[in-house]
Amino acid sequence: MSALLEALRAAVGPDHVRADGDLSAWELDWRRRYRGRALAVVRPADTAEVASVMRACAAHGAPLVPQGGNTGLVGGSVPDDSGRQVLLSMTRLNRIRSVDPANLTLTAEAGCVLQAVQEAAAAQGLLFPLSLAAEGSCTIGGNLATNAGGTQVLRHGNARELCLGLEVVTAAGDVWDGLTGLRKDNTGYDLRDLFVGSEGTLGIITAATLKLAPRPAAQCTALAACATLPDAVTLLQRARARLADGLTGFELMGRAALDLVEKHFPALPRPLAPSPWTVLLELSDAEGEAHARALFEALLGEALEAGTIGDAAVAQSLHQSRQLWQLRESIPLAQAEEGPNVKHDIALPVSRVAAFVAQTDALLAQRFPGVRLIDFGHLGDGNLHYNVQAPEDTDAAGFLARHEAEVNALVYDAVQAHGGSISAEHGIGALKRDLLPRYKSPVALGLMRSIKRALDPQGLLNPGRLLDPDEP
Amino acid sequence: MSALLEALRAAVGPDHVRADGDLSAWELDWRRRYRGRALAVVRPADTAEVASVMRACAAHGAPLVPQGGNTGLVGGSVPDDSGRQVLLSMTRLNRIRSVDPANLTLTAEAGCVLQAVQEAAAAQGLLFPLSLAAEGSCTIGGNLATNAGGTQVLRHGNARELCLGLEVVTAAGDVWDGLTGLRKDNTGYDLRDLFVGSEGTLGIITAATLKLAPRPAAQCTALAACATLPDAVTLLQRARARLADGLTGFELMGRAALDLVEKHFPALPRPLAPSPWTVLLELSDAEGEAHARALFEALLGEALEAGTIGDAAVAQSLHQSRQLWQLRESIPLAQAEEGPNVKHDIALPVSRVAAFVAQTDALLAQRFPGVRLIDFGHLGDGNLHYNVQAPEDTDAAGFLARHEAEVNALVYDAVQAHGGSISAEHGIGALKRDLLPRYKSPVALGLMRSIKRALDPQGLLNPGRLLDPDEP
Repeated sequence: MSALLEALRAAVGPDHVRADGDLSAWELDWRRRYRGRALAVVRPADTAEVASVMRACAAHGAPLVPQGGNTGLVGGSVPDDSGRQVLLSMTRLNRIRSVDPANLTLTAEAGCVLQAVQEAAAAQGLLFPLSLAAEGSCTIGGNLATNAGGTQVLRHGNARELCLGLEVVTAAGDVWDGLTGLRKDNTGYDLRDLFVGSEGTLGIITAATLKLAPRPAAQCTALAACATLPDAVTLLQRARARLADGLTGFELMGRAALDLVEKHFPALPRPLAPSPWTVLLELSDAEGEAHARALFEALLGEALEAGTIGDAAVAQSLHQSRQLWQLRESIPLAQAEEGPNVKHDIALPVSRVAAFVAQTDALLAQRFPGVRLIDFGHLGDGNLHYNVQAPEDTDAAGFLARHEAEVNALVYDAVQAHGGSISAEHGIGALKRDLLPRYKSPVALGLMRSIKRALDPQGLLNPGRLLDPDEP
Repeated sequence: MSALLEALRAAVGPDHVRADGDLSAWELDWRRRYRGRALAVVRPADTAEVASVMRACAAHGAPLVPQGGNTGLVGGSVPDDSGRQVLLSMTRLNRIRSVDPANLTLTAEAGCVLQAVQEAAAAQGLLFPLSLAAEGSCTIGGNLATNAGGTQVLRHGNARELCLGLEVVTAAGDVWDGLTGLRKDNTGYDLRDLFVGSEGTLGIITAATLKLAPRPAAQCTALAACATLPDAVTLLQRARARLADGLTGFELMGRAALDLVEKHFPALPRPLAPSPWTVLLELSDAEGEAHARALFEALLGEALEAGTIGDAAVAQSLHQSRQLWQLRESIPLAQAEEGPNVKHDIALPVSRVAAFVAQTDALLAQRFPGVRLIDFGHLGDGNLHYNVQAPEDTDAAGFLARHEAEVNALVYDAVQAHGGSISAEHGIGALKRDLLPRYKSPVALGLMRSIKRALDPQGLLNPGRLLDPDEP
C-alpha cells in the first residue's frame, strides 16, 4: 500500500493526497445512503496528472473511483467500504479552456461546476442549456459520465446531445484527445458516446467540448390544468405542433405533489385551483416577449376551447415565471419534509405514460391501501419521477423498511411491461446494479460486459458500479 | 463451400441465395470504383433469418458484407474480389413496423428505403427529417450504419441524432432488441451509438426506432450573396440568433460551383449576379408563410444594411424554393458532366472554415496551376464538399491518375491542421481505410480495435472496411 501511496504522491504532489483525517466529504454520498472508506483521496490538477494516477493504480492493481461534485443519486461516486479504493476527485480540473462563439462551442475541464459553464457561455451572450437542481455544485464531468438530463431535455437533449467531443484517460493511463468541435465526423466508432453515460467504468473524462446555443430573446411560462393524463398528452402534441422548438419545457405535476408543496411551503402562490394534473409550459422565443405571449395565448385559448385544459395562467413577469418554476422544483423538497419515500426515476414512451400511471396507481393502491403517489416529471421526455410516499400519519421509515423492495418490483415490472426504462436520468450506480439483470436483456448485458472487459481488462475503473463484468 | 451454401439456403430458402449469374447489381459500388466478387448474395426476409445467416457464416468462418441500397460513396457495401465474402442484402426487410404519433416515433426495418420512411411519417402529418440525394434508393439501415448526414443536419442532426433505438444481430448471431422509443434511458453503455456509424463492422442493424418531428406550417428559401467567407459565417451567426431553430438549412456555394452549374444546366435560373459566395437559407416555420417571409426579410434587410451580404432573393413560391434547392443539388451533377474530379467530404469547426479555404486554395493553386476548386456544402454544420477539378481543357483522367494522392494528402493535412475531420458524412469504408492511421490518434485507433475484437472476435463483419483490427 505504501508503495502505491508513494506513487500517488509522486503523481499529484504530496499536498493533494489525503489518506487520513476526516474524508467524509468524499466518502458519503449526497442522499446519505452510501458511506465508504477510501484508501486515499487524490486530487490531480490536470489531465497529465490524472493519467499518472491511473498508471499508478494500474501498476498496483488498485481500483479507482472518479468523483466530481458528488451529487449523484445512485451511489456511483463514493468508494465502497473495503478501504482499498482510490478516490479520484476531479474538482481541481476546473478551467474553461476556450469558448468559440462562431462555432457555438465551449471546452471545459471535467471538474468545472455546471453553473460555471453556464456562466462562461452567458458571458459571450450564449446559452449552455443543461440545467438541473444540483447545477451549483455538480461538475460537467459527472454530468457527462452519468448523461444527466434536467429541465431542458425536450428541446436540447440530455448531456449526451450537448457534447461534441471528449478528452478521456483510458484504463491504461493513455490520454485520448477527442476534443473536436465538429458537428459531423464519421471517422470510426463513436467513442464519445460510449464514455458518456458509462459512469466512470470505462475511462475517466477529463475535458469536454460542449454545444452552445443562441440565447432566446424571451422566455415565457404558463400553467395549465388538465382533468386527465391523456388530456396532458394531447396538450403536449398541440404545443409541439404550434410552438415547434420554442417549447423548451413541459413539466407534469400531479395533484398530490402540489398539495404537498402547499402543505410545506404555504407561502408559494398556487395560481390555479387544484386539479388532477397541472402542466408547466415554457416557451423560448427568438423574437421577444410580446410574440411569445401571443403564441402562448393562442395555444392555450385553443386548448381551453377544445376542453383539453380546464384553466390556464400565463406568467406576466420574470418574477412570476420563477415562482411557477419554484412550484415545480419544490416538490422533491416537500417530499423530503413529509418523510422518507421511495423514488423512481423512470422513462416511458410518451404514448404509454397515461396507461402506465393508471394501472400502476391502481396496483399500488390495492396492495398498499392509503399509499400516496407523488407523480411529477418531464412529460415531454416521457420521464416521470414516480414517487411513493407512505400512507399519511403512519411510520414512514417502517413502511419503507418493510415494503421498499416490493414497491420497487411492482413499479419496475410495470415499467418494463410498458416498454420503459428503470433509470431515465440518474443512472445505475450501486443503487440499481443488482436490478439490471432483471430488466436488461442478456444480449445487451453480454455486449456491455464484452466492452467493459475490452476497455478495462483489470476491472479497476469504478468497480461494483453499473455492471459486474465477470458474470456469465 | 457447398456446406456453407447449404446452410445459407436453409436459413433463407433456396430462392433467396444466388451464387451464380450476373451479380453486378450487388458487386459494383455506386461510384463504380469498386467491383468485387461475392461467394453468394443472400436475401433474408426478417430478423430471424438474418440471425440464421450470421450463425451459418460464424460456423463456417465466412466473412459477411451487409448491404442496403448500395448507394454508399466510400466502397463500404460491396464484397472484395476474393470470392469468399457473403453479400447480405437487407432489402427484403422493408416493413414499417409501427408509427406512434403521440410519442413522435416510427419503427422501420433496416431495408426500408429512406423515402418510404419519410412517406410513412408524412401519412401521419409528421416529418422524418433525414434527407439526402440518394433518398429514393438508400435504406435506413445503411443510413444508420454510416451515420448519414444530408441537408437537415443543422436543425435535426445526423442519422445518429434521429435514432432512439436499434435492433441488431450480433456477430454471434444473437438478436439485441434495443427498439425503445425512449428519450431518456440511462441503464448502461450506449450500444445504440456504437452500432450507428460502425459501417457494418460490429453488428447488423435489422430495425430502428426513429424520431419524428411535427411538420412545419411553412418552409421558405432565400439566396444571399457574400463577398467573403467570413461574411457568410457572420450571416450564419446572425441567422441563428434571429431564427433560432427555424433555420433548417444554410448551404454554401462557391462561384466556381455555380458557374459549372450554369455551364451544364443553362436552363436553371440563377437569381443573383455571380459573387464569390452564395448562401442558400431555409427557414421552417410553425406559424405560416407570411410569418416566415417577414422573419426572412428582417434578417436579410439587416444583413444588407450591415454589409454582410451584397444582394438577396427570397423565393416567392414553393416552385421557386425548389429551383433554388435544385441549383444547390445540381453541383455534383455538373461536376460529373465536367469530368473526373477529386472529392473531399470534410468537416471543420465553423470558425475555421474561412481560414482553411483561404490557405488550402492558395496551396493547391500554387502546386497545381489552373486547378479549379469547386467548394460547396453545409456551412451550418462546418461540412464542406471541397472538390478539386482538373484545370480547364486538360486531360482530367490523366491529372487525377498523376495527382490524386498528392491532392488528398495536401487537403487532408490542412484539414487536420485546422482540427477537422477527413470524413464528415460519408464514412471511411474501403476508400479511406488506409488514411485513418495517418489522421486518427493511435489511442483512438487502439480503443476502436479493442472494441472490434470484443464484439467480432472472428473478424467476420465487413472485413477490410473502416479499420484493420489486427494492427498493433
